[in-house]
Amino acid sequence: MQQISVISLGVRDLARSKRFYVEGFGWKPVFENDEIVFYQMNGLMLGTWLEDKLQADSRRGELKRPGAFSLAHNVPTREDVAPLLARLAQCGGTMLKAPEVPPPGGLAGYVADPDDHAWEIAWNPAWKIDAEGHVHFGL
Amino acid sequence: MQQISVISLGVRDLARSKRFYVEGFGWKPVFENDEIVFYQMNGLMLGTWLEDKLQADSRRGELKRPGAFSLAHNVPTREDVAPLLARLAQCGGTMLKAPEVPPPGGLAGYVADPDDHAWEIAWNPAWKIDAEGHVHFGL
Repeated sequence: MQQISVISLGVRDLARSKRFYVEGFGWKPVFENDEIVFYQMNGLMLGTWLEDKLQADSRRGELKRPGAFSLAHNVPTREDVAPLLARLAQCGGTMLKAPEVPPPGGLAGYVADPDDHAWEIAWNPAWKIDAEGHVHFGL
Repeated sequence: MQQISVISLGVRDLARSKRFYVEGFGWKPVFENDEIVFYQMNGLMLGTWLEDKLQADSRRGELKRPGAFSLAHNVPTREDVAPLLARLAQCGGTMLKAPEVPPPGGLAGYVADPDDHAWEIAWNPAWKIDAEGHVHFGL
């Protein structure tokens, strides 16, 4: 099955990270303890996990930044992109790229979370997103 | 809406990466061109994107490894964990952690993809996964 169950992001300060995700994105944790916060997403979990725990669990050496990945969150309209980027920047994020029209159309900008993980905030009219937030590929 | 639309992984060789995802995991691309391969996942997209393109698009400097994140793929039974880890290692992956029973129970190991992105392969009986592969939090 083509399935991802969790994205775990290494974080250094849970409260700082929560401010970005809870106040910035407006998301609610489904679980939290003193080392991890889980958010129930569209068919998968987002975990923000103290970096030393993630490092030990995955048997890795020093985790580096910026990592070679990004995450994207799509919004319903073109007009939603800039205000959400601004709010995320006010909640501890760092602007990476102001909104631009990408080659296929739409509108997208990037912001880094307080732990330097890149989030693209995008309006992409070619990709259908259903009532549960599930994204379907389209051109 | 609590929604992630894309996970983009920076890759250095699309064919090498495809071998891991297509032959290792057994997944089928929904789209590919000379710089990106998209896989339709459970309510979101996995994109494997040439690293210099991802770097330019997100306005970042050099992308580093290992990044401070991991992805997880859950399997239906305890017996599925070890064979999938072994197949992924045969398809260009690197074993990070042999399967162990984590504190909450279940079974999980880690493998890095050919671009050093960590994947946890887990059996977690506490998390429900429906017929569409959508994961629901549980304890």
